Amino acid sequence: MQAFPPSFQKLVHELSRLPSIGEKSATRLAYYILKEEGDLGKKLSSAISEACSKIGLCKTCFFLSEEEQCRFCVDPGRDSHVLCVVEKPMDIISFERMGEFRGLYHVLHGLWAPLRGQGPESMKLAELLRRAESAEIEEVIIATGSTVEGDATALYVARLLSERGIPSSRLAQGMPKGGELEYSDEVTLARALAGRSRIEAL
Amino acid sequence: MQAFPPSFQKLVHELSRLPSIGEKSATRLAYYILKEEGDLGKKLSSAISEACSKIGLCKTCFFLSEEEQCRFCVDPGRDSHVLCVVEKPMDIISFERMGEFRGLYHVLHGLWAPLRGQGPESMKLAELLRRAESAEIEEVIIATGSTVEGDATALYVARLLSERGIPSSRLAQGMPKGGELEYSDEVTLARALAGRSRIEAL
Repeated sequence: MQAFPPSFQKLVHELSRLPSIGEKSATRLAYYILKEEGDLGKKLSSAISEACSKIGLCKTCFFLSEEEQCRFCVDPGRDSHVLCVVEKPMDIISFERMGEFRGLYHVLHGLWAPLRGQGPESMKLAELLRRAESAEIEEVIIATGSTVEGDATALYVARLLSERGIPSSRLAQGMPKGGELEYSDEVTLARALAGRSRIEAL
Repeated sequence: MQAFPPSFQKLVHELSRLPSIGEKSATRLAYYILKEEGDLGKKLSSAISEACSKIGLCKTCFFLSEEEQCRFCVDPGRDSHVLCVVEKPMDIISFERMGEFRGLYHVLHGLWAPLRGQGPESMKLAELLRRAESAEIEEVIIATGSTVEGDATALYVARLLSERGIPSSRLAQGMPKGGELEYSDEVTLARALAGRSRIEAL
């Protein structure tokens, strides 16, 4: 590495701060950025600084947004009676890809994870409660992941909401599509059993 | 993706032009760049543009350099009688890590790869011949990889050099350190056999 020019070494250093990119990959990426024709370096550099300067959080739901409010919060076609609570902005993309949800979102930007030292105050939770209380919310769907922390957060948020008389629900847990019993873990199977639904005879 | 702000989508697009980074990884990286504290975005953006504007190729050996000539070419401690010819700048790093070569380098920036439409003119070959002819070069070590294209290039370059009366050599081919016979491919084994050396009795 010492053989490379200083500005190359600096670029490798910054690239290797990205997740899952070690020094070797960073060196390869840096070299690619330099040698690639078509202005990759220039465009990448300006795309990064543009995104960093333009993008903030929606003041209502905390999704990424270039404006004060994101495109969901300003969309009059969305159902403002239902709120879907997710951990991070990415999760909204999964919901939108699925395409069957027309309500609004709320991004917690974290989970309740005591083992990693993250208490409830690390989430946008006060904002959620204020929002759920003030507006015409009829249901809050808590769509955190099916992990220990996702479950704990969902239960915690649900209790706070119920204390305020706001009904909440949780995504169903069970067998994923294409899941085979042979390869299912015990927890998934137990949850699928507990949540079984009656088959109506035709 | 459409749900993200335009500048975010643009950043994802530029990141996904990097090798081995698809849209999903690019989205994850873009989000990390935005949310990470400690100015990652700002530093990364400026490191890229600085590297792109400062780094060019050494006018003698075509290694990456911020100056007219790279640190090897200006180093009076290097042996200017031996030239090591490599495919790309990265290869020099491997040589320097090994630490037993004190000569100078020459980067071809390509290989002779007719199947990919790359003829000899795609390499810094004329520059190598001029360099080898003019200076006090005693040996040219051709250190291209042990691939079909690396071998073809080595033979081609060696012939051109020999026509000009310049002796060249090629890296030894054989078993890698730690290599087990059970897992060796036929070509490696055949080359190791052909290149066997006598064991001197103690």
